[in-house]
Amino acid sequence: MTPSEDRAVRLPHLTGARAPLTRTVDVVDEFGRASQVSIPAERDLTVYVDKRELVTLMTLGGHPEWLVLGYLRNQRLVGGLDEIESITVDWDVGAASVKTRHGIDRIEERTARRVVTTGCGQGSVFGSLMDEIDKVCLPPEAGLRQSQLYGLVDAIRLKESTYKSAGSVHACALFRGAELLLFVEDVGRHNAVDTIAGWMWLQDAVAPGSMVGEDKVFYTTGRLTSEMVIKSAQMGVPVVVSRSGITEMGLEVARRVGLCAIGRATHKRFLCFANPQRLHWDAMPAVPAARSHTLDAL
Amino acid sequence: MTPSEDRAVRLPHLTGARAPLTRTVDVVDEFGRASQVSIPAERDLTVYVDKRELVTLMTLGGHPEWLVLGYLRNQRLVGGLDEIESITVDWDVGAASVKTRHGIDRIEERTARRVVTTGCGQGSVFGSLMDEIDKVCLPPEAGLRQSQLYGLVDAIRLKESTYKSAGSVHACALFRGAELLLFVEDVGRHNAVDTIAGWMWLQDAVAPGSMVGEDKVFYTTGRLTSEMVIKSAQMGVPVVVSRSGITEMGLEVARRVGLCAIGRATHKRFLCFANPQRLHWDAMPAVPAARSHTLDAL
Repeated sequence: MTPSEDRAVRLPHLTGARAPLTRTVDVVDEFGRASQVSIPAERDLTVYVDKRELVTLMTLGGHPEWLVLGYLRNQRLVGGLDEIESITVDWDVGAASVKTRHGIDRIEERTARRVVTTGCGQGSVFGSLMDEIDKVCLPPEAGLRQSQLYGLVDAIRLKESTYKSAGSVHACALFRGAELLLFVEDVGRHNAVDTIAGWMWLQDAVAPGSMVGEDKVFYTTGRLTSEMVIKSAQMGVPVVVSRSGITEMGLEVARRVGLCAIGRATHKRFLCFANPQRLHWDAMPAVPAARSHTLDAL
Repeated sequence: MTPSEDRAVRLPHLTGARAPLTRTVDVVDEFGRASQVSIPAERDLTVYVDKRELVTLMTLGGHPEWLVLGYLRNQRLVGGLDEIESITVDWDVGAASVKTRHGIDRIEERTARRVVTTGCGQGSVFGSLMDEIDKVCLPPEAGLRQSQLYGLVDAIRLKESTYKSAGSVHACALFRGAELLLFVEDVGRHNAVDTIAGWMWLQDAVAPGSMVGEDKVFYTTGRLTSEMVIKSAQMGVPVVVSRSGITEMGLEVARRVGLCAIGRATHKRFLCFANPQRLHWDAMPAVPAARSHTLDAL
């Protein structure tokens, strides 16, 4: 390799495989009436690395190449984008063929340990993710304004989505303040996160520094599980927002890494579960006379 | 072994490990007010089979012994209850120690293949589950009355639950008609199903034939994924009901095995996605003048 080649960004070649995201199916309702509704697509995508079968992902199929890229990264199988020559997705056979430049070292051994996590499986590296947690350093001053939080919740509410037309999918999104950068849905929530991770990796290669995490916010419709919080922290994103609640391990990890975890975010309401000092209260609603969070409302 | 021992039902010895299901945590709401809410517990339970580490499950911890039993069964690692001598759960160390009578044959090989499924992971046997699907035979006449469906939806609505007090858990339940037999919640939905499977296995050993599936209904708060449908079919349960929707693979499997799949079940409303002939319309509501299922309502 010459010095000039060494400095150049070598992006992997990616196909742009597309497939329908919803499907119309026949149903019968409570009145015995036949009608039709949309349901999300769900495809199996078997990932081969240098012709060796690695894993089968069940996915909506919106961005399979970014998904595979993010999967490889988040499973810590690939350290640099330039290690991957190409990712070729062929929906006819449900296969994603990854070609690396030099192979993946000790791939057998590194994919051996399994943990079934709450956050929808894929936990093979959970143990080592936890080991890495203490290396994460989120800038103490990074945070979010309450007005931006309301802006991003509103952006999600207005987004056209597979969920609105067919239900049964999770959504994740990446924001810069209240600005929506990427919105991804999938039948498996972990796939949505991995897809965002893959996209960020590519963006960062094209415009180095653009995907620094500290001004970003990670949104998910699902619960804030340990897996979601860990992945957010590893992307360097200091704030996570969810429409749902938080799990105990999700909370523990958020506290440990100093990540601001906001749940139950709908309209103007939310609960900050960890590190509220990252939230700047510039849009506090007037406290209503007799209204408070009750457990029923959760 | 003497002939009499051979005929006796040898139940595994199970501990009855207990741990709190919720935890109170500090939060800050949208008015900047500090308060407290409950969140579900989430514990890691590492399963050892004959002192060999098998998997780590993240669980609420309600019924860890049934969970481990159901996990071993649903992963097809154990064929008969009498193969297991004991399951000892110790929450202090987060361990479930399974002692078998004669070891598990080829355990390394049989836990090697991984599939990340939509239905919250744990898909190591997904491939072989699909292979087994065609062996499933659900009695053609088995079904559910609409009045029973409404009864079971109501029973779920009225059930005291961790969800009501703390949110963020999935529930599964087993019904005989409208009679609730077992209600299980967990942070991971697959855990709830496995727990029910483990319980059914024990019940069937104590009262052989009591857990035949054909008069049972399987309820889940989560989506009807392929994994949920497959597991229901394997328990011989011909009807699944969900508050949520269905995924494409879930629908395909339901059609393939002739399972009645009912989704969006709340109050008197529902959509039957597959095999509506199993549903007996004895409680059909009057059709309102101008009301129909719209996608928005899904």
